[in-house]
Amino acid sequence: MDATARDSQGSDLEWRVTVPEGASVTLEHEAGAAERAWAWLVAYVVVIRAAVAGFARKVWKIGADDPRKVVHGLKVGLALTLVSIVYYTRPIYDGVGGNAMWAVMTVVVVFEYTVGGCVYKGFNRAVATVSAGLLALGVNWVAEKSGDKLQPVILSGSLFLLAAAATFSRFIPTVKSRFDYGVTIFILTYGLVAVSGYRVDELLDLAQQRMSTIGIGIVICLAICVVIWPVWAGQELHLLTVRNMEKLAGAVEGCVEDYFAAKPSTATKSEGYKCVLNSKASEDAQANLARWEPPHGRFRFRYPYAQYAKVGAAMRHCAYCVEALNSCVRAEVQAPEHVKRLVGDVCTRLAAQCGRVLTVASSSVAAMTSPKTLDFAVADMNTAVQELQGDLRVLSPILAAETAEMSLMDVMPLFTVASLLIEISARVEGIADAVDTLASLANFKQEKDDNDKKDKPR
Amino acid sequence: MDATARDSQGSDLEWRVTVPEGASVTLEHEAGAAERAWAWLVAYVVVIRAAVAGFARKVWKIGADDPRKVVHGLKVGLALTLVSIVYYTRPIYDGVGGNAMWAVMTVVVVFEYTVGGCVYKGFNRAVATVSAGLLALGVNWVAEKSGDKLQPVILSGSLFLLAAAATFSRFIPTVKSRFDYGVTIFILTYGLVAVSGYRVDELLDLAQQRMSTIGIGIVICLAICVVIWPVWAGQELHLLTVRNMEKLAGAVEGCVEDYFAAKPSTATKSEGYKCVLNSKASEDAQANLARWEPPHGRFRFRYPYAQYAKVGAAMRHCAYCVEALNSCVRAEVQAPEHVKRLVGDVCTRLAAQCGRVLTVASSSVAAMTSPKTLDFAVADMNTAVQELQGDLRVLSPILAAETAEMSLMDVMPLFTVASLLIEISARVEGIADAVDTLASLANFKQEKDDNDKKDKPR
Repeated sequence: MDATARDSQGSDLEWRVTVPEGASVTLEHEAGAAERAWAWLVAYVVVIRAAVAGFARKVWKIGADDPRKVVHGLKVGLALTLVSIVYYTRPIYDGVGGNAMWAVMTVVVVFEYTVGGCVYKGFNRAVATVSAGLLALGVNWVAEKSGDKLQPVILSGSLFLLAAAATFSRFIPTVKSRFDYGVTIFILTYGLVAVSGYRVDELLDLAQQRMSTIGIGIVICLAICVVIWPVWAGQELHLLTVRNMEKLAGAVEGCVEDYFAAKPSTATKSEGYKCVLNSKASEDAQANLARWEPPHGRFRFRYPYAQYAKVGAAMRHCAYCVEALNSCVRAEVQAPEHVKRLVGDVCTRLAAQCGRVLTVASSSVAAMTSPKTLDFAVADMNTAVQELQGDLRVLSPILAAETAEMSLMDVMPLFTVASLLIEISARVEGIADAVDTLASLANFKQEKDDNDKKDKPR
Repeated sequence: MDATARDSQGSDLEWRVTVPEGASVTLEHEAGAAERAWAWLVAYVVVIRAAVAGFARKVWKIGADDPRKVVHGLKVGLALTLVSIVYYTRPIYDGVGGNAMWAVMTVVVVFEYTVGGCVYKGFNRAVATVSAGLLALGVNWVAEKSGDKLQPVILSGSLFLLAAAATFSRFIPTVKSRFDYGVTIFILTYGLVAVSGYRVDELLDLAQQRMSTIGIGIVICLAICVVIWPVWAGQELHLLTVRNMEKLAGAVEGCVEDYFAAKPSTATKSEGYKCVLNSKASEDAQANLARWEPPHGRFRFRYPYAQYAKVGAAMRHCAYCVEALNSCVRAEVQAPEHVKRLVGDVCTRLAAQCGRVLTVASSSVAAMTSPKTLDFAVADMNTAVQELQGDLRVLSPILAAETAEMSLMDVMPLFTVASLLIEISARVEGIADAVDTLASLANFKQEKDDNDKKDKPR
């Protein structure tokens, strides 16, 4: 009954008349509508439940992959609760407009994931508040002396000029990367004092209270950030560099293995270069924040974080070439198997040597020991390059003899792979040089024995 | 006198005694110290002046290159001054803790360079303030009913839980990219109300005032941002994409021209691919902000900004290969000139065709017309690829005949260039496809005649 009844609902009224038991049909009809609504509802609930479950799984995975993110949330909650309790037990505040507000605001805005981020924001907030406050006091004093008529002109005029200049200064790269937040707070503080309409002696009182409150907020933030499971931007950068170098090593080896293997692998190993290509932004951000961090663990004062960015650039330079190599490996047109086999061994060996240089470099960075064996690995790699070149040279007459049967065109893909591999080894050497520079800048200690590698920073 | 006198100062006292006119020498000596201090001072001033002048030149250049940045500074100054004047002429505020503060704060924090940024922050601030305020009112009401003992527990406990959950939610990519600022404001507002200690009826009054003040701030920001020389994130993204496509076209052509030219050029044209490699971050940021923008000019509602990011990804995919090509071109080991000349013409033609596809695509995007001639350009490019492959095939016997004189090794660099060029043309086709998709998603209008190209958005 229902399918037709439901389909013809409303638009097909005649039908209801022709049926003998009209009343019953109408009832069926209503039941149909209700049923349909119910079906819709159920469908919606199912869809929404699936979406919510999917979302929940994703969120759970974020937390499970890196529990420090959950801990960060708890740390922020703790800092805020601490501040609120401080102001609850000592009711010295005079409402939301009072001091409690500034402590809460400071905690919410200054508390960042990494210690570097926290120090950057805390420092910027403190310095900007103090300097803008002092400047505003001075200008207010001058404005007060200039009479009632000039006062608003001086205050608004100075606000306009300072806000314009400060906002423009944020486009200067150095200011942007180190003092962006400070500039915002500078404009904010100056603006607040300028529109406050207080007299200078009132302001002095207020300024003192406010600064102490902001100070308390910053101290609570920094203390909780550093004491409870701290996340150091410098260490994150360090580990990211090590991880990327290992992935790049795997990608070079994986690509070449896939090329000469009977059937290509599932290609997870050989696509590690993609992480390297995409990590410029996070490397730059972390190098930027790491410079604000106090010495910690084996990262001493003035640790050369900027050199990590250079190592990263060298790795990306190499990854571009690996990307090109990977697309050769996955190309449809391939050299004949028997020609491939002629240089297969030497190519695989070269790739293994490239991988070894990267592995040695990455474990030297990981262990923070001077890369003593790196030079040997580079030398071995260069020997493998010469072997490959030699083999290719020997190959010429063999191929020339065969050209009756096949065109040079067919061998071209192999030549491309070989020359990309040679280019990659040159770029790997660039990475090794960058790591060498890092080791000397960061005073990596001499490697005594292999056990040293175990105490790499966690 | 002075050189020796100055050098021996202090440490060589005997010398002073041996000289007949001791007094004079002492005088000279003092003059020497003063002179030296003066020289130091002058040197310092010169160095500082040079540094300041250099910095000033750099700052001037930033403003001269893009006057909109200067205008942005003036716009922020204007918005702040407007707010301050509003609160100056109507003295309804009760000190810095009053409402004026929230308007100033809103303007400082919400005013962004692009309209999209402004809308994003304004929307987030408004919604987060309202929702956190309502939630806080509800929780406060419950806490008030629960008695004096439970009240602080409920307030602090809810603050802890909400702050922790909200902070963690910022690690979810969707939240991060669209509501990051809103989450901060949510925690801030909830925290402020939770520690305020006000009763619910006082809070209602306060909330109403504060929301209207924040509203005024947001309206002033948006009005000034949109009315005075607006910078649209969508348009910036559009122009960046067009510019990058043109640069990529130039780079492909430039690299191949340099390779076959008698002497390489200064290489500014052929290095345009570097901009493409580095613009992922700004593309992503602009696509993110553009989605908040209202329709403007030819960018209608729900304009497919996300597709620009895909075009950008296709361009980067191509740029990786151009990078590899460029390093082949600049390599020391090169194929013999007479062999190069055999495929020089056809390679240059292919590069020119690749460049033409990119130029057609970029001018189609620039003019927002459907890329009618793009398919023809792609077909021409594929013909050129086949010509190159044909020439290489013909080359085989010629080279085979010559292998007595030279090794195949010598020809390898040429083969690499050729096969990279073929790979680049495949990737250029990928860009053309992405542009085609963009054209259909964005409903680019049919091109009537070439004059259409003139009214590309500025």
